[in-house]
Amino acid sequence: MADLKKYLGERRAEVDRALQGLLPRASTVPATIHRAMRYSVFAGGKRLRPILCLAAAEAAGGRRAKAMPLACAVECLHTYSLIHDDLPCMDDDDFRRGRPTLHKVHDEAIAVLAGDALQAIAFEAAAGARGTARYPASAMVSELAVTAGSRRLIAGQVLDLEGEGTKLDRKALVRIHENKTAALLATSVRLGAMSANATPATLAAITKFGMALGLAFQVIDDILDVTQTTEKLGKSAGKDVASEKATYPSILGLEPSRREARRLTARAEGALDGLGKKGSRLRQIAAYLLERDY
Amino acid sequence: MADLKKYLGERRAEVDRALQGLLPRASTVPATIHRAMRYSVFAGGKRLRPILCLAAAEAAGGRRAKAMPLACAVECLHTYSLIHDDLPCMDDDDFRRGRPTLHKVHDEAIAVLAGDALQAIAFEAAAGARGTARYPASAMVSELAVTAGSRRLIAGQVLDLEGEGTKLDRKALVRIHENKTAALLATSVRLGAMSANATPATLAAITKFGMALGLAFQVIDDILDVTQTTEKLGKSAGKDVASEKATYPSILGLEPSRREARRLTARAEGALDGLGKKGSRLRQIAAYLLERDY
Repeated sequence: MADLKKYLGERRAEVDRALQGLLPRASTVPATIHRAMRYSVFAGGKRLRPILCLAAAEAAGGRRAKAMPLACAVECLHTYSLIHDDLPCMDDDDFRRGRPTLHKVHDEAIAVLAGDALQAIAFEAAAGARGTARYPASAMVSELAVTAGSRRLIAGQVLDLEGEGTKLDRKALVRIHENKTAALLATSVRLGAMSANATPATLAAITKFGMALGLAFQVIDDILDVTQTTEKLGKSAGKDVASEKATYPSILGLEPSRREARRLTARAEGALDGLGKKGSRLRQIAAYLLERDY
Repeated sequence: MADLKKYLGERRAEVDRALQGLLPRASTVPATIHRAMRYSVFAGGKRLRPILCLAAAEAAGGRRAKAMPLACAVECLHTYSLIHDDLPCMDDDDFRRGRPTLHKVHDEAIAVLAGDALQAIAFEAAAGARGTARYPASAMVSELAVTAGSRRLIAGQVLDLEGEGTKLDRKALVRIHENKTAALLATSVRLGAMSANATPATLAAITKFGMALGLAFQVIDDILDVTQTTEKLGKSAGKDVASEKATYPSILGLEPSRREARRLTARAEGALDGLGKKGSRLRQIAAYLLERDY
């Protein structure tokens, strides 16, 4: 555990350094937009997705340095999606990571544009990744683009918005979570594995791990939204209930949701069985992420 | 001239077919977002940027088919930027290409998300382009990403918004136009040339052509905004004056603006001198575009 905390701290610092180098300085003209991008990117996020990307590269036998452009790409994409999700016309959220959301600090126009620019820089970063024997660089860019697009991330957000105030069944809810949360987590580990020229079997195992981890993560998030305080979450608690969003607890109830989270966690860990010792870091991270107090 | 009209008509149909194949069908779940993306992409645009991309590929001795993924990419990027520019929190425009803007037909959330998804699909398309001996595929993606980002397209939009109601000088105005309009036009022809493995000299000539053409195009747009009717433009006329935007006519006056447009047009045409006969199609398109009634 001490060892994992050290690993996470070191990787987080590594990712932060790479993001510092990737993003234009705050003084670059027009300064407003660069300050805005940096406000959101350096808001104290856990760097979960980029760290998973780096760890997956190691699990597939590769080096972290080769995965770093992709790690930065998924983090920029994630940050952009949070900025746009928080907009008044979307989830209308005033707090994120314990600080006012970007459109509260600047205005809506700057928040839309900072999100747009972060999506662009995600692809700029991804284009800096080297192809491998099995995966050309364009396959990695394409993977990121499909995940960011209207059949994945955006689909999840649209289904989520459309589901507000309506009665969703479990299948519809899983579909939202798969697209909104799990797809980018799976892509994060997939891109790391691809940068390491993973065998098809390893890539398949890592993909299964990423999807299950992503779903488990979202179920736990849903649970925490009803059981935790705003202060502890760093974002508005009880939002889901207030906006009549379908969540695991609202559809299944609290205890069955906890059982579902444990089931998905076991599935994520089981997906790594074939990787043997090489999968142990990813397994550790999963256990750490999913052992939140839910 | 009849020959050029035929060329433009054929290329436009070709681009439309490719875009039809690229964009998910309107029935793809969630249908709302795919209908919205298609509403804006198939709104009767002239396909200026993708046609310039294809013509530049031919001018550099290449084939149109190789440039088509990039042509689709620049059109999707352009359409996304229009959707976001028209949002209430930005330029707040109700009409575009003679039809209600996307946020009037759907709502703001869908307009933001459709723009986001079109940016993503632009990169999906670009990732489908093949690299050449001189230009790896990742260089093309990178070119598109930099142009879409906070130092180019987004910079132009931010400077434009920040300039509203303030007194800009000519240098500041040129900077806005370079970033907001000329950069994507230049990238359109550059990507076409890159797909054709253009020599450095050809790429330099085509880049110079694209920048001058883009600036000329925007000066003429500024002039038309004050001299034409909304009906003729297909978008709200007199918007620039109403929103106290700095434009060429407002800074230089009408006649000097016309002289500036002619000067830039001559510069664009002159840039192609080194290409000889191969540059004649691009020269024709420039003359056609810039011979609007301004």
